[in-house]
Amino acid sequence: MKIDRARLEYLKKDAVQGFTRYLGLVPVSLKPGDFVTRIKLQKRHFQQDGFAHAGLIATMADHTAGYASYSLVPESRRILTIEYKINYFQPAEGEYLECHGHVTKPGKNILFTEAEVYSIKGKDRKLVARAMHTMASVPATRVSRSSSTPAASND
Amino acid sequence: MKIDRARLEYLKKDAVQGFTRYLGLVPVSLKPGDFVTRIKLQKRHFQQDGFAHAGLIATMADHTAGYASYSLVPESRRILTIEYKINYFQPAEGEYLECHGHVTKPGKNILFTEAEVYSIKGKDRKLVARAMHTMASVPATRVSRSSSTPAASND
Amino acid sequence: MKIDRARLEYLKKDAVQGFTRYLGLVPVSLKPGDFVTRIKLQKRHFQQDGFAHAGLIATMADHTAGYASYSLVPESRRILTIEYKINYFQPAEGEYLECHGHVTKPGKNILFTEAEVYSIKGKDRKLVARAMHTMASVPATRVSRSSSTPAASND
Amino acid sequence: MKIDRARLEYLKKDAVQGFTRYLGLVPVSLKPGDFVTRIKLQKRHFQQDGFAHAGLIATMADHTAGYASYSLVPESRRILTIEYKINYFQPAEGEYLECHGHVTKPGKNILFTEAEVYSIKGKDRKLVARAMHTMASVPATRVSRSSSTPAASND
Repeated sequence: MKIDRARLEYLKKDAVQGFTRYLGLVPVSLKPGDFVTRIKLQKRHFQQDGFAHAGLIATMADHTAGYASYSLVPESRRILTIEYKINYFQPAEGEYLECHGHVTKPGKNILFTEAEVYSIKGKDRKLVARAMHTMASVPATRVSRSSSTPAASND
Repeated sequence: MKIDRARLEYLKKDAVQGFTRYLGLVPVSLKPGDFVTRIKLQKRHFQQDGFAHAGLIATMADHTAGYASYSLVPESRRILTIEYKINYFQPAEGEYLECHGHVTKPGKNILFTEAEVYSIKGKDRKLVARAMHTMASVPATRVSRSSSTPAASND
Repeated sequence: MKIDRARLEYLKKDAVQGFTRYLGLVPVSLKPGDFVTRIKLQKRHFQQDGFAHAGLIATMADHTAGYASYSLVPESRRILTIEYKINYFQPAEGEYLECHGHVTKPGKNILFTEAEVYSIKGKDRKLVARAMHTMASVPATRVSRSSSTPAASND
Repeated sequence: MKIDRARLEYLKKDAVQGFTRYLGLVPVSLKPGDFVTRIKLQKRHFQQDGFAHAGLIATMADHTAGYASYSLVPESRRILTIEYKINYFQPAEGEYLECHGHVTKPGKNILFTEAEVYSIKGKDRKLVARAMHTMASVPATRVSRSSSTPAASND
């Protein structure tokens, strides 16, 4: 599949809306199957001990890997997360979180992805989490909320 | 360990701060090892197809299971998420998300938890996700950000 | 889909071959979407500390959930494991392992399953592990080794 | 911690006993935190479609990562698997399976590990699975079966 520059630019923008806009996600670079994003850490991102919330990190990993997947499927398809596993190596603090999401196995209906999340403080960069996801590529018509067809599902 | 009512009330409130306050998490009921929370769905919670973002659901599962864990450890301990796995059964939409988090195996240093997330629309209630977590119980002194002691870690 | 008795009997027998025969897997009961198996523990199943090997337990969980899935798909389909997560609650010893595998979300191409593994010693029965799997249902023609068609894959 | 050559040689041999001896596991090389193993595929390793059983692959990943962990803890400690997640990228066939297990985050009580499993057929080498594990390092005295102390547990 040929992936044109315009499509990648579109997806980079499309990645920031709704929940990810609310969280402050910033796209850094998107190549086919490979997406990098950042979030500038603020108080609203912290949990009770002053670390970036595990849920924020997981969201970033999931979303970044999801849009890495988007870059490898036709425009007529949508990506839904089927499942993932995430390991937290150490509590995250610092100025930024940076996430690298990449497709480890593309496929017509199922894509495997992985993502690493780093905390960045000045020149200090630490791996704080790694995730492995299974993504479903489904026809866009199946996830249309306004349609009267049955709701989207993973099969 | 005796768990008094005042401690449970404290934890119910403590569960909503920083990131979870920003997301609109509402505690419903907390019993030892068992926590129920809700989030009223709004546009800021959605992903690109109009469903509740997978990251929101994961955050809810993680946090609810985390505070279910809190209710079973001494006040001198803090809970950190080590890892989890989450399955998404179907896209989530509706008025509310409701999460049930429970400790499946307590322990001095490690607790296993599980959580189910339901979407609720009127009388309709659907299981949208299930997660299994490993939580670390660590001395509070080790996660104190202002202290000069070594940073928190999972060991 | 109508599931006849003969098909269930066939699958119960089919579940024991190759690797699972070598391990001593015994089918106990198979209902649509629900399979129970046992393994009588012997020295060849142990790891270095004298417990049932984590890999034996995982194999049992995977296979039992896999054949629970088989019982819900047409005869023209095969089941392949896409991924799973397993939690070990305590080391396993005793006379038997017993596994309950069940389909938590059926689907045309993807099925979610879960499995619990118990260790049994006389009247003592302990939950030693729980797993969550994603299974792929694929056309049998795609996993035929003798065919000249492309090798089986998960999409 | 200084890791001497004799200890590594001991662990390489120790890795093959009970279940792993029964399965035909062969240690290839062990460096601190890094273990490589092989299994020559035979009919007894196959599942119903003629592929290496997912459980065999998972066992190999778990065990190889487990002994990679062993090489980083004192002799007075034992390694128990707490949990893992495994992704299967494609069905495995060929002459050998080869597994690379490595510690991604060491720790006093908890170690994170990862493992890749490859199928090998002549010069053809395919990544068939990747796993992420959480390992517990526990005092050897706690996993002694002959002792009258409480059974081993993960905390």
